Amino acid sequence: MNCKPIGVIHTPFKKHAPYQPVEADREDFYVEVDKEYEAGLDELSKFRYIYLLYFMDKINKALSMKVEPPWAGGKEVGLFASRSPVRPNPIGMSIVQLLKIEGNRLFTTGLDALDGTPLLDIKPYIRELDSKEEANYGWLDDLEDRDHLMLHIRGIPHDE
Amino acid sequence: MNCKPIGVIHTPFKKHAPYQPVEADREDFYVEVDKEYEAGLDELSKFRYIYLLYFMDKINKALSMKVEPPWAGGKEVGLFASRSPVRPNPIGMSIVQLLKIEGNRLFTTGLDALDGTPLLDIKPYIRELDSKEEANYGWLDDLEDRDHLMLHIRGIPHDE
Repeated sequence: MNCKPIGVIHTPFKKHAPYQPVEADREDFYVEVDKEYEAGLDELSKFRYIYLLYFMDKINKALSMKVEPPWAGGKEVGLFASRSPVRPNPIGMSIVQLLKIEGNRLFTTGLDALDGTPLLDIKPYIRELDSKEEANYGWLDDLEDRDHLMLHIRGIPHDE
Repeated sequence: MNCKPIGVIHTPFKKHAPYQPVEADREDFYVEVDKEYEAGLDELSKFRYIYLLYFMDKINKALSMKVEPPWAGGKEVGLFASRSPVRPNPIGMSIVQLLKIEGNRLFTTGLDALDGTPLLDIKPYIRELDSKEEANYGWLDDLEDRDHLMLHIRGIPHDE
């Protein structure tokens, strides 16, 4: 099952990326779609949010079925109960706000991918389908300092 | 960029799948994860919703940058503004409710994949990260009968 890049993700992160989306609306997060796919962007700008799927090809940590997510205080969970980037198929997924489209460039809010990451797909985030208000926090609810953890997850600056 | 199956998605759909998730909570939608990955499911059952990523390898329609989504009354939009399964990388994504896990089987609510579809990844749907209440409907808002369309998109039975 082969995948091919349809573009490139540009971020300020050259070697290390934060673990979850960064709240930012500067112009240093953008996606450049290959010219042959530019026509596929028609009408996309009407969506406030989009999904980006990308191939995390620069991660060379060993795969493990148990992981200790950052900021989870050493709690160990199954890999698929985590958003760890080290997965059998290193497909990353981020939900970002689409700020503007200029030609084949999509400017977005922050995301936690390395600069140069190959883009696999863009999908519209459709409120009716994708926003699940009854969704929960899973094992994160078991943590004593969940609210504090959420600030880290969302990349919101705060006093420790 | 190679992907490999980590399991198989089972649905009642042998040849045709509906276009969007089917609301159902019978036992005929389940995911079977390969035994070597079963340990990665630990703690996943605490999540109400999960993402499934899969490889839509049985679709052999021609790729086009313009599509006419079903029920959109002939409106043409860019491929990436749609959830069409015919994409440069045929990676399908569904959000489903996780009903129960029995060993390496995850029973879920309905999804619009064909029976036997190779599974690529499972990610937890974390409310704080993934439920965007400010998300909109993009070009769907331009349609006169948006509310009716939503019933189709969500697979809710109704009188025409």
